[in-house]
Amino acid sequence: MSFPPIDGDRLWSDLMTLARIGELPAGGCDRLALSDADGMARNVFRYWMEEIGLKVSVDPIGNMVGRREGTDPSLPPIMMGSHLDTQQPGGKYDGPLGVLGGLACLRAIAAAGRATRHPIEVVNWTNEEGARFQPGLLGSAVFTGQLDLETAHATKDVGGRSVFDELRRIRYLGDAPLQRKVDSYFELHIEQGDRLEKAGITIGNVAGCEYNLFAEITCHGRNGHSQATPMDQRANALAAAAEVIVAIEEIGRRHFPAGSAGVASLRLWPNNRINIPHLARMSYSATHPDRAGMAQIRREVTEAVEAAETRTGLRIEIEQPPEREAVDFDASLGALVERAAEELGHSTMSLRSRAGHDAIRMAPHCPTQMIFVPCKDGISHSEFEEMTKQHAVAGTEVMLRAVLARDGAA
Amino acid sequence: MSFPPIDGDRLWSDLMTLARIGELPAGGCDRLALSDADGMARNVFRYWMEEIGLKVSVDPIGNMVGRREGTDPSLPPIMMGSHLDTQQPGGKYDGPLGVLGGLACLRAIAAAGRATRHPIEVVNWTNEEGARFQPGLLGSAVFTGQLDLETAHATKDVGGRSVFDELRRIRYLGDAPLQRKVDSYFELHIEQGDRLEKAGITIGNVAGCEYNLFAEITCHGRNGHSQATPMDQRANALAAAAEVIVAIEEIGRRHFPAGSAGVASLRLWPNNRINIPHLARMSYSATHPDRAGMAQIRREVTEAVEAAETRTGLRIEIEQPPEREAVDFDASLGALVERAAEELGHSTMSLRSRAGHDAIRMAPHCPTQMIFVPCKDGISHSEFEEMTKQHAVAGTEVMLRAVLARDGAA
Repeated sequence: MSFPPIDGDRLWSDLMTLARIGELPAGGCDRLALSDADGMARNVFRYWMEEIGLKVSVDPIGNMVGRREGTDPSLPPIMMGSHLDTQQPGGKYDGPLGVLGGLACLRAIAAAGRATRHPIEVVNWTNEEGARFQPGLLGSAVFTGQLDLETAHATKDVGGRSVFDELRRIRYLGDAPLQRKVDSYFELHIEQGDRLEKAGITIGNVAGCEYNLFAEITCHGRNGHSQATPMDQRANALAAAAEVIVAIEEIGRRHFPAGSAGVASLRLWPNNRINIPHLARMSYSATHPDRAGMAQIRREVTEAVEAAETRTGLRIEIEQPPEREAVDFDASLGALVERAAEELGHSTMSLRSRAGHDAIRMAPHCPTQMIFVPCKDGISHSEFEEMTKQHAVAGTEVMLRAVLARDGAA
Repeated sequence: MSFPPIDGDRLWSDLMTLARIGELPAGGCDRLALSDADGMARNVFRYWMEEIGLKVSVDPIGNMVGRREGTDPSLPPIMMGSHLDTQQPGGKYDGPLGVLGGLACLRAIAAAGRATRHPIEVVNWTNEEGARFQPGLLGSAVFTGQLDLETAHATKDVGGRSVFDELRRIRYLGDAPLQRKVDSYFELHIEQGDRLEKAGITIGNVAGCEYNLFAEITCHGRNGHSQATPMDQRANALAAAAEVIVAIEEIGRRHFPAGSAGVASLRLWPNNRINIPHLARMSYSATHPDRAGMAQIRREVTEAVEAAETRTGLRIEIEQPPEREAVDFDASLGALVERAAEELGHSTMSLRSRAGHDAIRMAPHCPTQMIFVPCKDGISHSEFEEMTKQHAVAGTEVMLRAVLARDGAA
């Protein structure tokens, strides 16, 4: 089988162009889901899809799809994609690489006039990040029927604006069908870890996703004057929270490199320098490749919380929601990725994602596979997220070959 | 000298009535400066002043004064007062006791038809707490010329509303003169500590205020995915902040009972569970009765910050603003308080305040004295702030005697 060439310069130019929409001073992006910047990025992406003759549709949760028809109208589409929204601050590649990589594959196919049996689609999922509207993976969850549309529409940001209103405001409330049949889904993404970079490997063949947990911890103190209250009468919810945060960071380091644990967010009531806070709520997160490791992290966090309760005399509650189970991607698609990388002369590594991705929502819906490429120092969700053009192109070339192989085989 | 009796039932009733304005479920108050609740409390206080024949005036920063004229028009007023605004949440007594205690003294004087040489005034200072507008002690600072009116008017809350606009909105933007001459100022207040309660003493004769510091500490991290970033690549500003908070709490406990130190407020950027924060800013506070002790606390905090920098590898900046100097109140007024308490058969203790009070702003302007009465467990700035009626009345009776003694002597 011959393969049309990827235009690597254009792919990189598209990534850099998109990064100017919501650009931050140090080079990253602030492009929260359904913000003005997201709307403008969507408009540009729509134009790029139309430019190569794709048929563009938008569904009721704002997922954007560009489609090139196949020769067999009875076959469902092979889909590639990811998301254009970012964290605040976010980087240039987390999300856009998978969307614009998919676009680059379709551009190569269209330029070559290559006929495919299946329709080939590229998708931009709505609100993958969950930085503005919770939960993340919103668009893919609605598309696959794991979250109902009404609930998703009613979700509000901290300013009280709903997904529905914001979709309408930026003109991405469409009517394309949800839950339609998909042959297979490929998602190209930066690793957001440093295993590939450290091993000097170009292609990560993603076997699935690790166990993954977010849980809330709440410390109950008692208000008091922050200067006049005698030290032995203080019940400072922040001081108790700080003990827990230090302990969880230490637990994360103990489980390195297999697992991780840490606290990234904290809210205080009141949050006033003259008034000892009576309430501190934090969200801790953890990952581990196996169930027993995740259970061990939970146990250690529970023990750390109990120790902090004993030392401070404050009541500390810990939520114990179920973790997100590990997800397995599709072994047959993984084999196609493996072969494509081999043919292109790239080294590969099988690994599991520690982050959430739309591919997790797609996996129960259709055969699904992710392809990782290296990023600098494992940094993402950051203005300092970096990757090389060479890796972006390599990952896209692998995806194109895997997609065409699937089209030929399936 | 004979003294008109304080109506203790009415004083307590006034305190309880006022506490219904901005009432919180557990019994405290949310009456932020220049809020609707503050406006309503002011209206009630104005009515109570008019009810006993006081002449009410409001100055351009919203300080409310009720005045009963003296027999010698050449003499400046003896003033009593405190503030009606609260923390969020705040208690029923921090502030209102001094205002309504002053009102109770004037009610007693008026009911007895007692002539005084000096005019006697009761004052409600604007925004003592600084919970909504910074700095606190705003009204008394403007009144005494330590803060200019334009700066104070331009101060905005977090929602962007200015002191000027809010004074006008609640109709307390007046035109009474600022910086006028005052003979002397008395402020009755709950101790906000537990020295009186522990010693079983009724009257605290306040010699002045301790050294007092607020300083900002800023931790610089690097954003990153809170689950996917490898533990050895994380630079979590919150984890560094937590180490500093734990250390400062420990320093505070080491200096107990003389000094105190702690952290009550913290802000994160971003504050999102999926994104490691790149910035954490906290405000730490400390008190100590002597300069050397305060210097020692500063040194220990600096060492703790340096140790946290070394352990975490993160950059941590610490502001070193000058502390608020210790303030001495007026020894001759202190002697009057001492004698009044003795005549009434109350035990007394000389102590220094660890909190800020309008009396600190008044001290450079005129002879100033504070009177403390016990509060439960040293708790204030809290819904659980408590004191007894007996102590409220005792403090008020002492203040009345001291004021009338000053009027006779000065």
